[in-house]
Amino acid sequence: MSKIAAIMTDFVEDIEITSTKEALENAGNEVVVISDNGKDHVDGKQGSTISVDQSIEDGDVSSFDALLIPGGFSPDQLRTDDRYVDFTKKFVESGKPVFAICHGPQIFIQAGVAKGRTMTGFTSVRPDLANAGANVKDEEVVVDDNLITSRTPDDLDTFNKEIVNALK
Amino acid sequence: MSKIAAIMTDFVEDIEITSTKEALENAGNEVVVISDNGKDHVDGKQGSTISVDQSIEDGDVSSFDALLIPGGFSPDQLRTDDRYVDFTKKFVESGKPVFAICHGPQIFIQAGVAKGRTMTGFTSVRPDLANAGANVKDEEVVVDDNLITSRTPDDLDTFNKEIVNALK
Repeated sequence: MSKIAAIMTDFVEDIEITSTKEALENAGNEVVVISDNGKDHVDGKQGSTISVDQSIEDGDVSSFDALLIPGGFSPDQLRTDDRYVDFTKKFVESGKPVFAICHGPQIFIQAGVAKGRTMTGFTSVRPDLANAGANVKDEEVVVDDNLITSRTPDDLDTFNKEIVNALK
Repeated sequence: MSKIAAIMTDFVEDIEITSTKEALENAGNEVVVISDNGKDHVDGKQGSTISVDQSIEDGDVSSFDALLIPGGFSPDQLRTDDRYVDFTKKFVESGKPVFAICHGPQIFIQAGVAKGRTMTGFTSVRPDLANAGANVKDEEVVVDDNLITSRTPDDLDTFNKEIVNALK
């Protein structure tokens, strides 16, 4: 059983947390939703309500086995919060699995961990990843060592299989 | 009287279009809201309804005297639509005034017109602008030849003055 930190705020792409969480939990893992939007839940971009488990203040990288960054407009907000940027940076550098989909990889830019890594992301994000020095692919899932990335909700079937496998 | 094209889609930062439109109109100008979200209006991030005047298909750069790009999550979507990216590129290269606030400058990256230009933008966007080769400032308004940019709604008073003056 692995314990996965999922970081997000309002305007997260709903299915990118609900579907990944379900797949990870069905495989026997625990997903901890971390947010600091001042509420006990996150309001998804499509109207879903996602329960928040804890603040970023109440856990560090050593408490978790993996990091999950769903997309939507949430990563754009997380990347302005140094606590989440630092958490992401430490996770990527720790070698523990990091899963990011859609706009999720945006936070790698602020964290300074995109350079030299191979990844994908949403159409709008790919030029920014490339400009940050990443080797960017237009593929449904890209695995680069501990980094697993996908482009859109359409990639979720493949993405979910890969992230579940990475924790086995 | 100048005619200004304002490009946006849903999740635009409401006040960045309502306040700029009002300031430009009060100075005797016409603001044409351009969107292609399949509706006769745009739904702002904060819940405002903004009437759409025309599609991007129904106008070209020669029909307008200036371009306005409000922020919010709208520019992230516009930058995935080649019609808007091309429109912006042609506008910037035409030398006609281009006004962008908050996330607005994101579209300059896709348009390939950020390199070597001096500008500002929202906190999350500034690293992407710098990686795209822009000279990025953290100032309430930055004027670089035909390009006028600001960071957030808090800069609107100064931004509105500058864009109105640019059309005199």
